[in-house]
Amino acid sequence: MNKVSGGVIAPRGFKATGVASGIKISGKKDMALILSDKPCAVGAVFTTNIFKAAPIIVSQEIIKANPTGIRGIVANSGNANCLTGEEGIRNARTMVEITEKYLNLPNNSILVASTGIIGKQLPMSIVEYGISKLVQRISVENSSSLAAEGIMTTDTKIKQTSYQYISGLESFRIGAIGKGSGMINPSMATMLCFVTTDAKISYELLNEALREAVEETFNRITVDGDMSTNDTVFVLANGNSSFEVKEKDEKYQIFLEHLKATLNDIALMIVEDGEGVTKVVKINVINAKKQEEAEKVARRVANSLLVKTMLFGENPNWGRIIAAIGSSGVSINPSKLQVKVNNVTIFEEGNFIGYEKNDILKDKMITIDINLNAGKFSYFVYSTDLSYDYVKINAEYT
Amino acid sequence: MNKVSGGVIAPRGFKATGVASGIKISGKKDMALILSDKPCAVGAVFTTNIFKAAPIIVSQEIIKANPTGIRGIVANSGNANCLTGEEGIRNARTMVEITEKYLNLPNNSILVASTGIIGKQLPMSIVEYGISKLVQRISVENSSSLAAEGIMTTDTKIKQTSYQYISGLESFRIGAIGKGSGMINPSMATMLCFVTTDAKISYELLNEALREAVEETFNRITVDGDMSTNDTVFVLANGNSSFEVKEKDEKYQIFLEHLKATLNDIALMIVEDGEGVTKVVKINVINAKKQEEAEKVARRVANSLLVKTMLFGENPNWGRIIAAIGSSGVSINPSKLQVKVNNVTIFEEGNFIGYEKNDILKDKMITIDINLNAGKFSYFVYSTDLSYDYVKINAEYT
Repeated sequence: MNKVSGGVIAPRGFKATGVASGIKISGKKDMALILSDKPCAVGAVFTTNIFKAAPIIVSQEIIKANPTGIRGIVANSGNANCLTGEEGIRNARTMVEITEKYLNLPNNSILVASTGIIGKQLPMSIVEYGISKLVQRISVENSSSLAAEGIMTTDTKIKQTSYQYISGLESFRIGAIGKGSGMINPSMATMLCFVTTDAKISYELLNEALREAVEETFNRITVDGDMSTNDTVFVLANGNSSFEVKEKDEKYQIFLEHLKATLNDIALMIVEDGEGVTKVVKINVINAKKQEEAEKVARRVANSLLVKTMLFGENPNWGRIIAAIGSSGVSINPSKLQVKVNNVTIFEEGNFIGYEKNDILKDKMITIDINLNAGKFSYFVYSTDLSYDYVKINAEYT
Repeated sequence: MNKVSGGVIAPRGFKATGVASGIKISGKKDMALILSDKPCAVGAVFTTNIFKAAPIIVSQEIIKANPTGIRGIVANSGNANCLTGEEGIRNARTMVEITEKYLNLPNNSILVASTGIIGKQLPMSIVEYGISKLVQRISVENSSSLAAEGIMTTDTKIKQTSYQYISGLESFRIGAIGKGSGMINPSMATMLCFVTTDAKISYELLNEALREAVEETFNRITVDGDMSTNDTVFVLANGNSSFEVKEKDEKYQIFLEHLKATLNDIALMIVEDGEGVTKVVKINVINAKKQEEAEKVARRVANSLLVKTMLFGENPNWGRIIAAIGSSGVSINPSKLQVKVNNVTIFEEGNFIGYEKNDILKDKMITIDINLNAGKFSYFVYSTDLSYDYVKINAEYT
């Protein structure tokens, strides 16, 4: 897998930029635009939250009307346009229409996404000003980083990645920008990810690959499996490269692997940039009797506040891990259970090993391996510690 | 409902005390004994955690062998005797046997409970010394408060309550001590509650009443419905009073109401004494289509870290409540949803009302009323805020 620079403009025929329109009173960048020189097939995954934000409803309609004719994405941060009623839906549509008008594009060719505060109407004259600025700047300040900056909220770092595949005469590129932090409670912290690729792939295969890739990446950082009102992943495939995926063959697998790597990079950047995060932990459950049981145990440990605060305090209070496993609702034989923390066995054959040094918790990246010795299914999930700063950031944020 | 003083020694024929044996190196009280002058019918509810602590396994055997012949409870804090293998089971049994020997009581007449650190063997010579001290002191320092102190861990206050029922010539008393804090993640914070009553009631009716009362009290403070490895509720009924429950009639209801009030008092004391708690919040969901749906919504909001930190920060970021409701997995019509915070409507007919003053979050006790307007089922649950001190206490505790 070859990393290349460029983010969403690494693939041929894509441009991107970001501007400060004034939606954020801080004066920070708050709008982004991604454009393709050709119509794209679109892959999309949206939140499972019942209260879907207006831009999601509008983007779903556009994709339904024009699944292979998408030319770009307009997005804003600072305002989620969620729980804003009919006026919110009209505003999201207007965002799309203004962008299409300024770019001289047909109807239903631009997708829309928003992130930020819930329950406030978008300031539409500011949004229109921002769109005009985006359209002016996209050729002179063509930059994936600027677009990534335009969708940040509590993020402290921009998030982008890109890969290139080359084999003989065939090659394609894939790139992405993303935003999201606070994966500690992802059910309310919006995650956006916009992917571009110059591979040629049908709408159907693109969406199949996207669902599979999301399941093994973004769904592994959402501790309780739920999503915010605005979570959105878009993939635009403009077919500018020589690489064409026609069926579920080897080339589909190559595309899928590159899509997974791209989403995995953004997912891990989101975890690492979690609100007040000082440690990232991978919880890896193996040898479960059923797939659901492996997932239940992994998510229960990932979700335990006592495990999270133990990691933050670098305090080897191993009983908290074992008690969390025991409260997962999965039937577990304690005498078969084996638990390792950063490869050091702490529990085996029904007993703690007596390893109580806290040096293995000093690392920034912690791995907890949980072997149930009951079957052949496994599951992993990423989580974080819980710090003073998490409380501080979320107690004070408006 | 008449409150009286006395805690577990308010009912006739019960004695109690607590001592410092040395299990806690701090020198604080760490053992408790409750005794009845007559054999008691016992009601019991234990944890649902897969890893049941040794004292639970041993107490279950004793209850099975002698369900109406129990004379008392011996308990310790500072060590949970959990995940301690065969040696732990032997130690729990030895605790019972030593107590029976010192008191000259028959086999299987004393129940046992432990709370504290997981995964360490009990120091049995210290435990034996503690039991001898408990037996010496129980007549000279007969005190519910001392017993309540003997089972504290991170609790900052002792927890006890008692009621008396009088009607004509009939009367009975009921009292309890309890321990527990950290209800924010109750799946790992042990809750103990020991109830005494001089009502006369059969083993079967006592257990039926206890299950019903626990469902409406302790189960409403356990945010995710799970329990720690050591959670235990015991009720001892010695029949010393003139009040006898023979069937599920009016007298059963009177007994049930008094048992509920007793458990509710202890449950609320546990919530208020939660680790680092500055606010207690009651989440009250009404007019749901199904009972499970009301419960799902209530528990989701109760469990949301962003709602909890919002309460701590007294920050009226109401979108977090609505987004939590929307991520509950329950199908909700936003235009029918109404949400009140301390009786002020903040969301109605699909829109935020625009009430953004934070003065309603200044109270210590917050009520969030969620009206789904979809049916006739309701559910409530108690939760707390999430503070710096929660993180501090749990990051540093060993």
